Amino acid sequence: MRSVEWDYEQHRLKLIDQRQLPRVFEVAEFDDYRQVATAIREMYVRGAPAIGAAAAFGLALAANQSRATDRTTLLRDLEAAAEELRATRPTAVNLFWAIRRVLRVATAETINGVDEVRQAILEEAQRLADEDVEINKRLATNGAALVKEGATILHHCNTGSLATVDWGTALGVVRMANEQGKNIHVLLDETRPLLQGARLSAWECEQYNIPYTLITDSAAGHYMRTGQVDICFVGSDRTAANGDVANKIGTYKLAVVAKENGIPFFPVVPTSTVDLSLPGGDDIPIEERDPAEITGLTLFGRPIAPEGARVGNPAFDITPHRYVTGIVTEHSVVYPPYDLNLRRVVEAEQANVSTEQ
Amino acid sequence: MRSVEWDYEQHRLKLIDQRQLPRVFEVAEFDDYRQVATAIREMYVRGAPAIGAAAAFGLALAANQSRATDRTTLLRDLEAAAEELRATRPTAVNLFWAIRRVLRVATAETINGVDEVRQAILEEAQRLADEDVEINKRLATNGAALVKEGATILHHCNTGSLATVDWGTALGVVRMANEQGKNIHVLLDETRPLLQGARLSAWECEQYNIPYTLITDSAAGHYMRTGQVDICFVGSDRTAANGDVANKIGTYKLAVVAKENGIPFFPVVPTSTVDLSLPGGDDIPIEERDPAEITGLTLFGRPIAPEGARVGNPAFDITPHRYVTGIVTEHSVVYPPYDLNLRRVVEAEQANVSTEQ
Repeated sequence: MRSVEWDYEQHRLKLIDQRQLPRVFEVAEFDDYRQVATAIREMYVRGAPAIGAAAAFGLALAANQSRATDRTTLLRDLEAAAEELRATRPTAVNLFWAIRRVLRVATAETINGVDEVRQAILEEAQRLADEDVEINKRLATNGAALVKEGATILHHCNTGSLATVDWGTALGVVRMANEQGKNIHVLLDETRPLLQGARLSAWECEQYNIPYTLITDSAAGHYMRTGQVDICFVGSDRTAANGDVANKIGTYKLAVVAKENGIPFFPVVPTSTVDLSLPGGDDIPIEERDPAEITGLTLFGRPIAPEGARVGNPAFDITPHRYVTGIVTEHSVVYPPYDLNLRRVVEAEQANVSTEQ
Repeated sequence: MRSVEWDYEQHRLKLIDQRQLPRVFEVAEFDDYRQVATAIREMYVRGAPAIGAAAAFGLALAANQSRATDRTTLLRDLEAAAEELRATRPTAVNLFWAIRRVLRVATAETINGVDEVRQAILEEAQRLADEDVEINKRLATNGAALVKEGATILHHCNTGSLATVDWGTALGVVRMANEQGKNIHVLLDETRPLLQGARLSAWECEQYNIPYTLITDSAAGHYMRTGQVDICFVGSDRTAANGDVANKIGTYKLAVVAKENGIPFFPVVPTSTVDLSLPGGDDIPIEERDPAEITGLTLFGRPIAPEGARVGNPAFDITPHRYVTGIVTEHSVVYPPYDLNLRRVVEAEQANVSTEQ
């Protein structure tokens, strides 16, 4: 199944509960948008595109839950639900983008009546989810063209089918290169604090028979310096107009060390995660998460930190564009100068989407 | 107590069992050198200087255990024990250095009779341990002179009193700067895989009332890029003649990102860990450790990797000297060119030690 999927029989949203992976595969079902908000916050679902799709379907639930009999009341209920969904994760731009897109449909003048609005919202959420899969396949194809036969790829966090509706972004590139028979091998950063590389990317690699080696985030430097990495692919939770990338904490360090060793470094970025309204990455808010993500570990059964240890837990960092070799989008691979070339590609894609609709 | 301490009443070696920290403080006692070898391998005790002292006292145990009635047999038994102790950890040079130093005493022509040899070995091990503390205090003083009032210091792994006989190397610098009333604050890398930063350095900071914040290794990049770090101090398990540093995995990445951000980066290095016989760091063997160190975690009670996940676990990395601002030794802070200046300082210290003996 997809990581985010609407159940048309039960009128429910189904999410793979990613907190349980890799040892337990469990699907959680939701009929209340508030539970969806909680699930996003508690990371049943994570990854910018998957969060966007979950929030879109969350609005479909909110529309069903609303007792409104007139459109104004329904829209007010939807706006309240949107507010709750937006408050879950501050860094990922897809969340805001998906909510805006679904709400726009709800306010379209061509639609009348509350049931028609409900229907239109669900259709838009479904379209958004389907498009995500299509976009990811195009990202994977564009990225895989950069991968040489026999390459070792370094990958951070989880950006695979679990992070999106299906296929994924950076890990989709790895999957595509593998399916193309390129004899690739992927080094997976475990990605502290929540270890999505170990928990989710390793699990996905096993599902898709991708040869992988799991390493600590620190070890990536050793592999890069000793010539054991050919290319890096990472995701992006939000990309600024100048090509600065906000992504999972650790991406910045990786990018700096990649550049130092002459290793190409490519974020894989659906244009929906590019925020042209932001001139640079330093305007992107960095989510500070629960200290328990750091101290809640046990190693061989023992707690790993003193009780009440003081903790800093920024969940994302900014990679300035000077460390970015190129940005893989669903349209093409964009190279510097990003402020020019990224804008051109994103605006072309947006025009394209508008025309299709 | 010291992390490595001889019990003169029981004729035993006592080690703080560092695997149990930070929640349980337990002292393990040893009367068999083979158990000491196991304890080093299983990391009851870790940190290059502490390992060296433990091995030295391990030889004292071996001498007591030997049933030899003549010196030749005793020396043969000691050599066999030394072989076992050397095989425990391949990267740390102190281990070899400490064993060599103790064995040299055992073969000294001025000593006759097996009991005199036994006595001489214990005295030499004790001298080595006492000198470690003295050297560390000098390291701490020399390093603390580099720390400005109100500085935020970044620190990797554990290099404190637990990593040495007492005081520590890099964390000793932090402790000294704190005791000098410099209003410092230390960011502690948690240091995967074995999380010595979280388990041991945070615990030590609480013991010594040093203000600290525990962070993931990945987050260090974010703090450095955003101007929240003034200076980095790390340890070294082995330093080559050209100033290349072998230290806990992750040190290399930290050094590269520090340099990129203009942040001074200082290994704190007792001259006993400088190996002038190695021209550069790439000749230093890198220990590959048990995959279970990576997969043996649980996060919120759940295993973090697929069963049987393929894992790479290099325990150390090499930081080329071009990333090293200066090397703090017990003699002075050494600056480039290291091949010249490091040799001068190390040979001066060694001459000094020979004279004292």
